[in-house]
Amino acid sequence: MTTQLEQARRGVTTDAMRWVGQQEYMDAEVIRVEVAEGRLVIPANKVHLAGTLRPVGIGRKISTKINANIGASPLASSDEDELAKLNVALKYGVHSVMDLSTGGDVDRCRLNLIANCPVPFGTVPLYEMIIDRPIEELTYDDIIETCQKQAAQGVDFFTIHAGLLKEHVPLTDKRIAGIVSRGGSLIATWMEHHGKQNPFYELFDDLCAIMRENDVCFSLGDGLRPGCLADATDEAQIAELRTLGELTQRAWEHGCQVMVEGPGHVPFDQIEYNMKIQQEICQGAPFYVLGPLVTDVAPGYDHITSAIGATAAAVHGAAFLCYVTPSEHLGLPDEDDVRQGVIAYRIAAHAADVALGIPNARDWDDEISKARADLDWRKHLELAMDSETARARHDAKQLPDTDHCTMCGKQWCSVRISKGLREERKTAKK
Amino acid sequence: MTTQLEQARRGVTTDAMRWVGQQEYMDAEVIRVEVAEGRLVIPANKVHLAGTLRPVGIGRKISTKINANIGASPLASSDEDELAKLNVALKYGVHSVMDLSTGGDVDRCRLNLIANCPVPFGTVPLYEMIIDRPIEELTYDDIIETCQKQAAQGVDFFTIHAGLLKEHVPLTDKRIAGIVSRGGSLIATWMEHHGKQNPFYELFDDLCAIMRENDVCFSLGDGLRPGCLADATDEAQIAELRTLGELTQRAWEHGCQVMVEGPGHVPFDQIEYNMKIQQEICQGAPFYVLGPLVTDVAPGYDHITSAIGATAAAVHGAAFLCYVTPSEHLGLPDEDDVRQGVIAYRIAAHAADVALGIPNARDWDDEISKARADLDWRKHLELAMDSETARARHDAKQLPDTDHCTMCGKQWCSVRISKGLREERKTAKK
Repeated sequence: MTTQLEQARRGVTTDAMRWVGQQEYMDAEVIRVEVAEGRLVIPANKVHLAGTLRPVGIGRKISTKINANIGASPLASSDEDELAKLNVALKYGVHSVMDLSTGGDVDRCRLNLIANCPVPFGTVPLYEMIIDRPIEELTYDDIIETCQKQAAQGVDFFTIHAGLLKEHVPLTDKRIAGIVSRGGSLIATWMEHHGKQNPFYELFDDLCAIMRENDVCFSLGDGLRPGCLADATDEAQIAELRTLGELTQRAWEHGCQVMVEGPGHVPFDQIEYNMKIQQEICQGAPFYVLGPLVTDVAPGYDHITSAIGATAAAVHGAAFLCYVTPSEHLGLPDEDDVRQGVIAYRIAAHAADVALGIPNARDWDDEISKARADLDWRKHLELAMDSETARARHDAKQLPDTDHCTMCGKQWCSVRISKGLREERKTAKK
Repeated sequence: MTTQLEQARRGVTTDAMRWVGQQEYMDAEVIRVEVAEGRLVIPANKVHLAGTLRPVGIGRKISTKINANIGASPLASSDEDELAKLNVALKYGVHSVMDLSTGGDVDRCRLNLIANCPVPFGTVPLYEMIIDRPIEELTYDDIIETCQKQAAQGVDFFTIHAGLLKEHVPLTDKRIAGIVSRGGSLIATWMEHHGKQNPFYELFDDLCAIMRENDVCFSLGDGLRPGCLADATDEAQIAELRTLGELTQRAWEHGCQVMVEGPGHVPFDQIEYNMKIQQEICQGAPFYVLGPLVTDVAPGYDHITSAIGATAAAVHGAAFLCYVTPSEHLGLPDEDDVRQGVIAYRIAAHAADVALGIPNARDWDDEISKARADLDWRKHLELAMDSETARARHDAKQLPDTDHCTMCGKQWCSVRISKGLREERKTAKK
């Protein structure tokens, strides 16, 4: 019963590593070395791996991955709604899903989702621990028991907010937005109430033992992530990051796989620094960021404000991007929000992969551009990231297989004119 | 009858410079110096300035500006539709508009738009010259006459594709997407047909004289802008840019204001270089870019693929961003496309302004974040870039003036929890 990390360290190339290598056009040995060094994780709970999971790698050497958050809240949603959201996310090409449910029958909903989820599946176990009761009542036993249960259910990665220490809380006093991470604000409240250290920090070795058992990957939560531009890269954020760096080491010593979570809201010019400092402090452990949003002023469009930041983040150091939907700050996402969030993040991840020269990434761009230049509408629309939406927009204007672009009409079509010009030049050359 | 540039050079601070200074929280003298050096333009045709125009400055020292393209095509649209699009663009805060009409009664449509347009108004005069006839029939007289007429009508800036030379065309032979600029493909066809140099290049001094008369600002078109990632930063693009650099100098010698147009489709990692080389070659003349799109694979979402590139472009050197709508590559934009394009580009421009430390830019972010942290929903939604859309999304979930965020419900609201925690900490300190 060893983890991907432990096996990689011992020189064993697992089936999961081989599969990831194939998906990424890489030699399995490269994947093994990256896993052994902690720079690449394959979140694959043994239970899920024995069932529906097709493993996914997350790391800087390979293509950038994206996650979609779904989950019921006490206000709304049902098992069926969450399954529908999962399926929308999968349809549009998400690489992992987190169930952040805080309402309904969370066990039933989770088991139902895992059974239908071919991609890595993550949770924030804290949420289940405090459903229908105040955070102040949380005990050490609750933490252990819930993590054990969810690990046994097949969850592939846990967000564990162990880095937010008691002494970090005062550092947030001068912030504009305070503590915007849900886990962070809950744990800070618990610590203030009990006058004690973060229980996830205190129990960290026990959690490592539980997570190692089924190879649940750590996603070390950033409870102090900035919730607005003004709070970005502040003392509180960096202090917690240093603790996350220590915890990364400790989890590695236990043989556990680790990712580290990051912001949030960050001005565009601070993104590169944020990525570099995480890579340094956490010694190359994959960075899993939420956006970041590059402005606070556009609620309703935060899939866009954050896809801008996510692209820059992935170029400069992040390996894993958590989507943000147009409903961010305003409401729980519905199915259409999930589509919009997933597509915006696939754009961000792919644009970064092209910029980074990830193997084969740009082939897709070149192929669709050739179809576009050839006025081959069928192929052009087929190759589109979201063919259905592109086709609907196109067909609303004109039928496919026309010999010009639908923006300007035949006479004004630069693609048609350019194509004709090139054909003439070729003929003239002969 | 002198231009803003000529007056600035002579030490005269015009009303337009004073107005721009006020809008930008800058001393009018700073604006004058920037105009005199060619680093800032105020596209303000004397006819339009005497009418509805409120001048707008475009340059690196001040906030980034965005443009919306509208215009009828032979396939669709009417005067009323174009006016409606203009009003949508203005409602969402566009800084300038270009009328790219290629169909309908273009004079009537243009005059109608100018009369209703308080922001700088641009055109591509070439389009009018060849309505209902092949490009091959274009004469020098057509060029002169149409530019004279449109200058007299009050157009504030002209896209003039004078930099694409006969000798540049063969450089595009090995491209995937060829020549995707409409003006570029038309002029290349004319040059190949007649075996002559670009007529806009040959007539450049005459055009300067016409444009100087009413102070129409040059927007030197990039007929060879890359139309896909594979073609970015290629020999053809850079060769034309060098010619644009020469033409910038020549226009300045004539006393004309100049902007330079740029790509297009550019991988994220090449954007900084593209911005820096334009600033060098064109000696600081404002760079007006179309996106750039950072991937070719997402038709239907090119407002997003390009807003990512536009943000990076504005951070690294562009002063003026031409929007791209979700209909790019697929059809003529409608009113809702205009909204989506304008908002995506306001996000890009603002995010860049924050990153660049443009005076007062981040105040807006801080103000909305304070309202958000205070759970002051009324103010939060009021301050949103698109209040209507944000309010609709919010209200669909819950009524305003609740004491928690609508994403997770009261018990799970990190903003509420954090606010409570801070209040307790404040009380404890006293």
